[in-house]
Amino acid sequence: MFGRSYECGKISERQIGEQVTLKGWVQRRRDLGGVIFIDLRDRTGIVQIVFDSETSAEALAIAEKIRNEYVLDIQGTVIARDESTVNENIETGKIEIQVNEVTILSEAKTPPFPIEDTTEVSEDIRLKYRYMDLRRPVMYETFKMRSDITKTVRDYLDEEGFLDVETPILTKSTPEGARDYLVPSRVHGGEFYALPQSPQIFKQLLMVSGFDRYYQIARCFRDEDLRADRQPEFTQIDIEASFMSQEDIMAMAEEMLKRVMKRVKGVEITDAFPRITYDEAMSRFGSDKPDTRFGMELVDVSEQVKGSGFKVFAGAVESGGQVKLINVKNGGTTYSRKDIDALTEFAAIYGAKGLAWMKVEADGLKGPIAKFFSEEEQNGLISSAEAEAGDLLLFVADKKSVVADALGALRLKLGKDLGLIDENKFNFLWVTDWPLLEYDEDAKRYFAAHHPFTMPVRDDLPLLNDEPEKVRAQAYDIVLNGYELGGGSIRIFERDIQEKMFEVLGFTPEEAKEQFGFLLDAFEYGTPPHGGIALGLDRMVMLLSGRTNLRDTIAFPKTASASDLLMDAPSEVSSGQLEELHLAIRQTAKK
Amino acid sequence: MFGRSYECGKISERQIGEQVTLKGWVQRRRDLGGVIFIDLRDRTGIVQIVFDSETSAEALAIAEKIRNEYVLDIQGTVIARDESTVNENIETGKIEIQVNEVTILSEAKTPPFPIEDTTEVSEDIRLKYRYMDLRRPVMYETFKMRSDITKTVRDYLDEEGFLDVETPILTKSTPEGARDYLVPSRVHGGEFYALPQSPQIFKQLLMVSGFDRYYQIARCFRDEDLRADRQPEFTQIDIEASFMSQEDIMAMAEEMLKRVMKRVKGVEITDAFPRITYDEAMSRFGSDKPDTRFGMELVDVSEQVKGSGFKVFAGAVESGGQVKLINVKNGGTTYSRKDIDALTEFAAIYGAKGLAWMKVEADGLKGPIAKFFSEEEQNGLISSAEAEAGDLLLFVADKKSVVADALGALRLKLGKDLGLIDENKFNFLWVTDWPLLEYDEDAKRYFAAHHPFTMPVRDDLPLLNDEPEKVRAQAYDIVLNGYELGGGSIRIFERDIQEKMFEVLGFTPEEAKEQFGFLLDAFEYGTPPHGGIALGLDRMVMLLSGRTNLRDTIAFPKTASASDLLMDAPSEVSSGQLEELHLAIRQTAKK
Repeated sequence: MFGRSYECGKISERQIGEQVTLKGWVQRRRDLGGVIFIDLRDRTGIVQIVFDSETSAEALAIAEKIRNEYVLDIQGTVIARDESTVNENIETGKIEIQVNEVTILSEAKTPPFPIEDTTEVSEDIRLKYRYMDLRRPVMYETFKMRSDITKTVRDYLDEEGFLDVETPILTKSTPEGARDYLVPSRVHGGEFYALPQSPQIFKQLLMVSGFDRYYQIARCFRDEDLRADRQPEFTQIDIEASFMSQEDIMAMAEEMLKRVMKRVKGVEITDAFPRITYDEAMSRFGSDKPDTRFGMELVDVSEQVKGSGFKVFAGAVESGGQVKLINVKNGGTTYSRKDIDALTEFAAIYGAKGLAWMKVEADGLKGPIAKFFSEEEQNGLISSAEAEAGDLLLFVADKKSVVADALGALRLKLGKDLGLIDENKFNFLWVTDWPLLEYDEDAKRYFAAHHPFTMPVRDDLPLLNDEPEKVRAQAYDIVLNGYELGGGSIRIFERDIQEKMFEVLGFTPEEAKEQFGFLLDAFEYGTPPHGGIALGLDRMVMLLSGRTNLRDTIAFPKTASASDLLMDAPSEVSSGQLEELHLAIRQTAKK
Repeated sequence: MFGRSYECGKISERQIGEQVTLKGWVQRRRDLGGVIFIDLRDRTGIVQIVFDSETSAEALAIAEKIRNEYVLDIQGTVIARDESTVNENIETGKIEIQVNEVTILSEAKTPPFPIEDTTEVSEDIRLKYRYMDLRRPVMYETFKMRSDITKTVRDYLDEEGFLDVETPILTKSTPEGARDYLVPSRVHGGEFYALPQSPQIFKQLLMVSGFDRYYQIARCFRDEDLRADRQPEFTQIDIEASFMSQEDIMAMAEEMLKRVMKRVKGVEITDAFPRITYDEAMSRFGSDKPDTRFGMELVDVSEQVKGSGFKVFAGAVESGGQVKLINVKNGGTTYSRKDIDALTEFAAIYGAKGLAWMKVEADGLKGPIAKFFSEEEQNGLISSAEAEAGDLLLFVADKKSVVADALGALRLKLGKDLGLIDENKFNFLWVTDWPLLEYDEDAKRYFAAHHPFTMPVRDDLPLLNDEPEKVRAQAYDIVLNGYELGGGSIRIFERDIQEKMFEVLGFTPEEAKEQFGFLLDAFEYGTPPHGGIALGLDRMVMLLSGRTNLRDTIAFPKTASASDLLMDAPSEVSSGQLEELHLAIRQTAKK
């Protein structure tokens, strides 16, 4: 232990009688009429140290001066606590340290906020004083888990023959994908490097090199407007392998995640992760990343209502849309009109023009629109919804994507509101058979649903020309509790297919060559079939540690405006620095 | 093995009779009158596959088309080779695969250079076709070793309770140190992030946070003009610990390096690494990173020659300088006047105004300057140099730093030229007791020899005001075979000492506060004594793999002008990208 006998949290009655040296922070100091008790804290926990009549006058005098967050070096004897003061909740609860000697290693001003797990302080203050925020035990535990996760991942991948290879951070800007962070070159005036959005191309080139199995816990960068679950720099567990099929890669990733679950959560998962196709996920859950910890699945009643007297439903189906419902068990009695109005407003955020509803009673459906449905139609709906008296049925009638978005979001909200989600569950789910392309109405062109290097299903290749939206990808996502944990695909490894893909994405042959010529060339020198997966580490830590904020999983995160409040970055630089980089700041700069 | 029975290099006579599926690249194809032999390669090695009269006509027809670097999927039977064709040098040398079926997974154009360990091709071509260059077995072996080194380091540090914590890549520009790479902010127009030169401040803040033990295999960046052993981005094994003394940290790093040596070199080092002070290293080897694999140490003969008739020597000593020699064993007979002239020119590069020499013969010293020394003086020099007849003594008389630089460089050159260095030796060496500060004659101020956060030796603190050059640092370097492998120090953890240090470095209090205020503030909230070390991973891989070029240790390195020849980075970006970043390019940009 290098100068310490033990860490604070690791002393128990087994050490009674021992002379020990301990170092740590003062969590709390109580002076009970000449006897001073101090809770001494380090990353492993807390131990109680006592200055009493046995303590030297010198040490007692020092103890008088000690305040919270002082750093102490103490020597003393481990003794048993009085029965009445035993704390069964902590490892050190049966003992205390009778101090012989104490040295104050560092004094401390009053902390800007108390060092406790539950803090009411604003996040900006926490970020400005991040070094204090990280003292809170819950923060340390999160980073301990993060370190344990990456260690487990590395151990597994190393065993499986994956090589840890570092790829460049200073690389080339490419137009496809999110906005790049740029780095001006001093040597090549007017030119820029870009920070990588992922090591995608490098890992594929390593496969061309015959490296066979690659991994990296890789920093990635995107200059996008930030949401709560986005950071300008984020970390992914990045994996690529040659000669492995989609099944092989999914099996490998699954085994890796099972090891992580066992190591950091103590959860042994023996069954294979469930699988669902993209189409089925959208149909049953209205989401490509379903939270399967609860039911309330979407029920398609289009066929049942298309001939009904309710024109909103019939019309939606007639014009190619859908009518779907979710069944809120027992919601018929608990949800008031006002509650339902609030849900309607919520659904509107996702594009739903309305939210129809009917309550299930012993003698059929009730509510303003119930009258439009015959008894037979009502019974059909009740049966499809597997509903019972007391339930509430919520309907969205619209085009397919709006129905999925609105009911999918409503399902999640209701699942949370109604406490249907078992927070102790970890539901992994594979989502497969993704579409290769997505059509963007604004840009009026196709974009790669995964990325431009994803291999189409071979049987679908002939559709690329005329019905590209029908082409399926050899792609797979891994979902945990309704969050996309990661995704992967088998890659294109043939020049002609890759060129075709660029063409479908709207590249001219010249643009494709200029941007990705080196990759197209590489494919002509003997390239193995290959594929891989990338998992978001920050999100994985967030989900497994039970945090709700991605920033709590990153030691020194940035705010929503991409600022580092601790170090004050970004910041102005000297004119000399700008001159060396051949740069000038435009008048458009805000300050 | 996911679709393969074995990797190519791992089949031996134990598999004779088995039906196997193999995948790999064609290293070589020979057609011996209807029987086709192919060396199939993957990262593990080569196996011979045979198409002969037993092979189907279909497979034979395919085999006819196969060329070098094609990727094949073959099925066949493992059979014993004829005695006469056994190759004892490789694992697979006793067997071959009789092919039943073959599929060409990928065709290949003629490679730009042969895929062999020894290549004559220019480095620019290798870098442009890096994906082919990395197919050479020696390259793969280097990256396998790199991955093994980091795995060993991680395993050790994890066992010792060090947490792997990631620190930001987008951080703040600081004026002290090398030139920063800058990243313009889009959100905060006119402001910049900087890429970190090291995680130094972050790891110290983690100590303030009570994380206790931190490590990271961290990417670092310096925008400096490149030499053969520099890259714009490089990787260091970065370690920091609280409550550990200099001895503790050195012991920990030493144990880590011993584990690495055992794992990747099979070398068990049981003795403690030798130690030398900075002063002794400079005095005995003329270097702060001595190569101790051979002797030829510098001998100080200032006292012996200061009264001699040779005015160059006497004068140098009189004016406060030194006279030192190195003894080139047997050099007296092998070095001609012309050879010695060449050495003189070499010494001049390091500032030596001349290189005096004398040869040792049975009856005393010989050479143009021998006459200036009495018999007694000559015997004294011979005795100090531990010289024998046939040796050559080389002298430099100058101020101390020039003597060290010139003779230190000369020693290294002669060690190499004369084959005195055992390339199989791995001589680790600790260099301790560094000066805290270095005076820069050009800038006319002191710079931190290590960095501004290094703790002075406490006893030397009073010297900081008046004789700062005499203050020693609690710093230590680890040297391997004459290269600085890494360095570390105990850090300042008290605000007043840190402020004093900034003052000595020429910061005004305002500048110190503006640049490092957050760190000074942090020290006031209870900071543990702490220290650490950082080791250059790229250089470690270079030295342990026996490569001579740092670029061979980096998968996708940059050239001396910081270009990526494969991806063509840096490159121009669109005017839209520049506008978003509020930047304009100056006319000074070269193109």
